[in-house]
Amino acid sequence: MSGPIVIGLDLGGTFIRAGLFHSSGELHGVRQAYMPTRESVQKGLEQIAALVIELTQEHGSAHLTGIGIGATGPIDARRGCIQNPFTLPGWEDVPIVDWLQDRFDLPVLLENDADMAALGEYWQGAGMDVTRLAVVTVGTGIGTACILDGKIYRGLEGVHPEIGHHVIDPSGPLCYCGAKGCWEVLASGTAIARTAHELLQAYPSSILWSKTAGGLEQIHAHMVAEAAKEDDPLAVRVIEQAGRYFSLGLVNLINFFVPEMIVLGGSVMNSLSLFMPFIERTITRHNVMVPATRVRIIPAKLGIHAGLYGAAFCILQKLEMSRYELD
Amino acid sequence: MSGPIVIGLDLGGTFIRAGLFHSSGELHGVRQAYMPTRESVQKGLEQIAALVIELTQEHGSAHLTGIGIGATGPIDARRGCIQNPFTLPGWEDVPIVDWLQDRFDLPVLLENDADMAALGEYWQGAGMDVTRLAVVTVGTGIGTACILDGKIYRGLEGVHPEIGHHVIDPSGPLCYCGAKGCWEVLASGTAIARTAHELLQAYPSSILWSKTAGGLEQIHAHMVAEAAKEDDPLAVRVIEQAGRYFSLGLVNLINFFVPEMIVLGGSVMNSLSLFMPFIERTITRHNVMVPATRVRIIPAKLGIHAGLYGAAFCILQKLEMSRYELD
Repeated sequence: MSGPIVIGLDLGGTFIRAGLFHSSGELHGVRQAYMPTRESVQKGLEQIAALVIELTQEHGSAHLTGIGIGATGPIDARRGCIQNPFTLPGWEDVPIVDWLQDRFDLPVLLENDADMAALGEYWQGAGMDVTRLAVVTVGTGIGTACILDGKIYRGLEGVHPEIGHHVIDPSGPLCYCGAKGCWEVLASGTAIARTAHELLQAYPSSILWSKTAGGLEQIHAHMVAEAAKEDDPLAVRVIEQAGRYFSLGLVNLINFFVPEMIVLGGSVMNSLSLFMPFIERTITRHNVMVPATRVRIIPAKLGIHAGLYGAAFCILQKLEMSRYELD
Repeated sequence: MSGPIVIGLDLGGTFIRAGLFHSSGELHGVRQAYMPTRESVQKGLEQIAALVIELTQEHGSAHLTGIGIGATGPIDARRGCIQNPFTLPGWEDVPIVDWLQDRFDLPVLLENDADMAALGEYWQGAGMDVTRLAVVTVGTGIGTACILDGKIYRGLEGVHPEIGHHVIDPSGPLCYCGAKGCWEVLASGTAIARTAHELLQAYPSSILWSKTAGGLEQIHAHMVAEAAKEDDPLAVRVIEQAGRYFSLGLVNLINFFVPEMIVLGGSVMNSLSLFMPFIERTITRHNVMVPATRVRIIPAKLGIHAGLYGAAFCILQKLEMSRYELD
């Protein structure tokens, strides 16, 4: 394998993923581990380093030129820190970029995971050549990024918008973001698991009882989606509620940006077929002021690897820019 | 007066306004008339032409070089038609641009009124030199435009986003846009008047009874705002409800665009002091994920004339471009 090699990392509230890429866009290997959120941050950093080492040992580290990281936001890109005390408690102000840079003696950069997933889909995925692209990533939270004319849209002081935390129903539950009934607290994977948990007592014959083996805190969005596919009444109700709110959030995204395309990614969107009827119905009902039905809504092509692609693309862009600066 | 002169028009559900501008940005005269919505469209067109003629007769028509129109959206800019059967019924497919072009033998263009108001504030108003500017115009409806790097943001097929119709509370009333509880149906001038109307019977001692002289359909947002300033309990309650929803819409706008500045205009925002406590409280409560409190929220500088400035600026930009094309 000749030419520059980079590693893209995706740090979430649940998993750490790492991918090794050739600059042409080929993915040569992926490693995944649980984020040790209940252990020390140092343990987390060592776990990240271990994945990088495993990948480079397997594929040869001779041409490794940089590491890009996408992480659950908000992040401080300048200081290279993750500033989300809710999803990654204890990581605030930890200089993760500096630490990896010192450890591997390579350029490292950190960006919001939703931005990275969007960039990945723009680079090698479903949104290639789309002028106004929105990418919505539904997992533990709801991350959203808009790519306008090939650039990630940022606001005041370069801040990443937090579309996942826009208010959809002020009578909804309180989110850590300060809002009641934001999109994420109503329709994320966490919201699906929480709602199933809340309603479980009212459904004594739900198959979720056996799936969780009595450990209710084990309920996960994926489990609920699988049960809904088996027509479990509780799971169907939970997915219906989340699906309605999720669709309203998409309608709002369309009202705000009117993108050509919305790409849906993240672990919850592996069950997109469950949500599609709600999305289609809701979009059609709101197709009055803007041509909502002409916005293409498609699944992410890169799946859970979108963030890895984006992180790799982002560090490649930075290395390319540095090269031009040297020329 | 030497140099090019243009006229900016603002067509709403209630008023027609016209302003005569020098290309340097000076406003030399304004005319206003009611939009004759209950009469024929022809009557409306003649009323528009009459205002143009009055202004040019008063200020000299020798240098009049174009007419810009901002109108209540959605509009079809290419065909030069207003396509809003709700606010301006009967005007759908009326070639207003062609009609005025023929009548005055001048270039005419038509854009969304919210875009025009935003452009006006960017040209000569509160938002000069602001990289990411959002302008919210609250009158009969809620119009919003975002100006990014000096350009009006447009979506798919050049469509103007309809941020005023994003859903804030799905348990709210049905809007003509197809949504329940969109921003406009909860917090526009029309919403304020409607809510006051709905609640009036429960407040037999409200001063609104005497102000309307028994004709309840005469209730107007301005009347409610004035009554709230006199601590009328009904009016205070209505403004409080609208203020809360209005503030949530601003929070959502901040979550989506994170603009440097939000400029608030339109007739309802003449009573901004009534709404400011709700805005400040809500923004502060939602200052977690994005630096919401660092977004400057200020009143429009050009007041109800913002749309006129923007319409004038827009036609001047177009004339300037044509001049370059001829060079």
